[in-house]
Amino acid sequence: MTTPDDREPAGVTDVADPPAGEPAPEAQDLRDVHLRADFIERIRDAIDAADRERLKDLVQPLHSADIADLFEVLSAGERRELARLVGDALEPEVLSDLSTAALEDVLEAMPPKAVAEAVQQLETDDAIYVLEDMDEATQREILRRLAKEERAAVEEGLAYPEDSAGRLMQRDLIAVPEFWTIGQTIDYLRAQEEDEVPADFYELIVVDPAYRPIGSVPLSRVLRCRRHIRIRDIMDPNPHIIHVATDQEEVAREFAKYHLISAAVVDDSGRLVGVITVDDVVDVIEEEAEEDILALAGVSEGDVNIGIFEVSRARFIWLIVNLGTAILASLVIGLFDATIEQMVALAVLMPIVASMGGNAGTQTMTVAVRALATKELSAANAARIIAKELTVSIINGALLAIVVGLAALAWFHDIGLAAVIAVAMVINIIAAGLSGILIPMALDRLGIDPAIASSVFVTTVTDVVGFFAFLGLAAAFLL
Amino acid sequence: MTTPDDREPAGVTDVADPPAGEPAPEAQDLRDVHLRADFIERIRDAIDAADRERLKDLVQPLHSADIADLFEVLSAGERRELARLVGDALEPEVLSDLSTAALEDVLEAMPPKAVAEAVQQLETDDAIYVLEDMDEATQREILRRLAKEERAAVEEGLAYPEDSAGRLMQRDLIAVPEFWTIGQTIDYLRAQEEDEVPADFYELIVVDPAYRPIGSVPLSRVLRCRRHIRIRDIMDPNPHIIHVATDQEEVAREFAKYHLISAAVVDDSGRLVGVITVDDVVDVIEEEAEEDILALAGVSEGDVNIGIFEVSRARFIWLIVNLGTAILASLVIGLFDATIEQMVALAVLMPIVASMGGNAGTQTMTVAVRALATKELSAANAARIIAKELTVSIINGALLAIVVGLAALAWFHDIGLAAVIAVAMVINIIAAGLSGILIPMALDRLGIDPAIASSVFVTTVTDVVGFFAFLGLAAAFLL
Repeated sequence: MTTPDDREPAGVTDVADPPAGEPAPEAQDLRDVHLRADFIERIRDAIDAADRERLKDLVQPLHSADIADLFEVLSAGERRELARLVGDALEPEVLSDLSTAALEDVLEAMPPKAVAEAVQQLETDDAIYVLEDMDEATQREILRRLAKEERAAVEEGLAYPEDSAGRLMQRDLIAVPEFWTIGQTIDYLRAQEEDEVPADFYELIVVDPAYRPIGSVPLSRVLRCRRHIRIRDIMDPNPHIIHVATDQEEVAREFAKYHLISAAVVDDSGRLVGVITVDDVVDVIEEEAEEDILALAGVSEGDVNIGIFEVSRARFIWLIVNLGTAILASLVIGLFDATIEQMVALAVLMPIVASMGGNAGTQTMTVAVRALATKELSAANAARIIAKELTVSIINGALLAIVVGLAALAWFHDIGLAAVIAVAMVINIIAAGLSGILIPMALDRLGIDPAIASSVFVTTVTDVVGFFAFLGLAAAFLL
Repeated sequence: MTTPDDREPAGVTDVADPPAGEPAPEAQDLRDVHLRADFIERIRDAIDAADRERLKDLVQPLHSADIADLFEVLSAGERRELARLVGDALEPEVLSDLSTAALEDVLEAMPPKAVAEAVQQLETDDAIYVLEDMDEATQREILRRLAKEERAAVEEGLAYPEDSAGRLMQRDLIAVPEFWTIGQTIDYLRAQEEDEVPADFYELIVVDPAYRPIGSVPLSRVLRCRRHIRIRDIMDPNPHIIHVATDQEEVAREFAKYHLISAAVVDDSGRLVGVITVDDVVDVIEEEAEEDILALAGVSEGDVNIGIFEVSRARFIWLIVNLGTAILASLVIGLFDATIEQMVALAVLMPIVASMGGNAGTQTMTVAVRALATKELSAANAARIIAKELTVSIINGALLAIVVGLAALAWFHDIGLAAVIAVAMVINIIAAGLSGILIPMALDRLGIDPAIASSVFVTTVTDVVGFFAFLGLAAAFLL
């Protein structure tokens, strides 16, 4: 598409300023711009040549997020080489933009001194992200190299449970008392040293004398008010407050639901301890939806970036669990081997009943799992949703029964067989609908993540009911 | 949990200030607080009694997002009743917080005058969301009732393609020339009328004389600088710019990747036409991940909220497509009916081969679909990822072959049968791995959404290859 001589630094986003009249850029083009294959090739060549200077020239013009993407695209070995060669010349934000799997490779290859220097410059929440999955010895070594204050902040953050608000939050924040005027506030902000204020903030948090948040003021409002106006007269009372131990999934849901830009984080005594901003939450939202989608298929998060043996092992466990389901289904078939011997058409048709049940069950289950995750399904509407799924199952079961029954009749010219498969189909689609909604709800109530465990149970139900209904009816009525 | 006499308005979030020493609130509790079953019951009673005053008392203390959630939980009939009774007393933001399905019900029941009044007060992007799915006649009627300026803005927005940056963006924005000082900027902001500035903004956009964005300044920086400092000296050059026709999925990816809070939107000539803020993008991120997860299972978006017949129809189409796959598998089995008649154990075991292939294929396919959506999988690393999937398939295929072969041996005491199922298993797991990665990549290259179409093709491969390999090998070597 473009030659290496192009002026624009390879890999850098450039959606702006398309020549007038040209069609809008399409997703395909954008991806090429992000990380063009020819750019990656040049990186690979420079890695092979261990050419530190050339790599620095290639990489340094890029945005930290693009450098992170570059690491993701490379293999584990290439990542380590690149980190070894230019790790000390990267912006620290590259580390916090990496996936956990790529981060592990990069940290392995970077000298502890360079890691400590990077961590020192990161905001607390990003520093915690970089450090939290390290083995303890390395983590201690890095922490030892940090300045005292930074170390205390990071250690405090690491003391909060994984995936909690305490790990997501930023400790640097601007809190003001309600009796201040706009003028006092602005003078206070101007008087702060550069490293005493957060890099970016969007709201002032108003606190009472016990340092409990009692309001918030968007910066746009501060800017538009005259100096003599008091904070208490322009603040939004009842600020959105998050407890430090809240799970990040819940934090993300609050942000999305209430369109928050930032929220105050408090400890058990209601005292302000930090602030979470929306840019950190965006990552969480992506991560949580990703987790559900992968869990439903029996794949672990970060599958694309981890090594072959880890992937094999994680997926194998899931396959073995499903093998249990498959063998159970075979045992059901085994009960009817005499029936099948007499009428081999049953063996030909039986997978249709089981697999259509599986498909219908997966449909309902997926909707239920997501509705539970987004809280669209709760005790308040459970009865209505179950009734709806049952009705949908009866309708689609009946329609499928007609289609499949007619197909079986056309194929085997046996009205009894056609009737049996039609009835078995209705039974199995209803079983699929009910198990698809009830199993995720039951798991959720038991505190088990329905995304991970539902599909095994639902498939077991649809396989067992499908084969049993079809072969059982055949044994009873056809022979 | 709580009595109706509790002081806190039912349904309102309250994660703040847990009594010291009590454990952190858990997700289960939070959900109950959000929309407690007993609160919903009181709403239902008031709807049944058509008691407008009681409903207003119940609903008005809630945050608009909680009122929207309330509508989602109710049935379509209850939604319409509630909208009819208190629709004119709701904050306009309730409408833009509703899902498309619930919005349709609510708009149906609200008088056009009330809808127009609400739309008039919404920001452009939210107004567009409310209007975009209406039938044309109603839309025209609402537009006619809007003030001239608001109407023009909404009509312009509706002229952009669905799901484009043009529909997401806010038209009210603050743009300043680079030669202004901080003092001039602040005076300008203070001089604006309330309705001339956006409700919330986080950055100033710096424009050149042709109104093209050339920089941005976070408000926190404006606040911290003295009045005499010039914008050009503190602005971030190269602002993140989005073309007005860019797809919202791409917009969301840019925001997530570069941790943006807001971004300038430009037209074909590079002129600033609007601004997108992160709170609108959070919705898009949730929506897009949701779409993929549901599409993989053959369910359409908003399934939880649409009517029974629409749901049945949408899901039935998917089931019929999958029925094709199932019948194809049956045809393959039909080829070997004589073989099965001679050895009924084949009928008992054959679903194991097909279903394990289906599971392994789904694992790979889900990873591939998500990696394509997040651009983690691209031309630059395709070869590496395909090689990895092939290796994982060989490893897991071999391991499963051993387990299943031994199980078959223990069950049927037939070493030939055990060998055949083991070999068939290896073949099918490899077929599953390759089709799981190659089919989504091929669909993506053809411009077809891999989330929607992949699973039918992958299942077809694993069913056909599974039955054919197992029964074919059995026919060739066992009889």
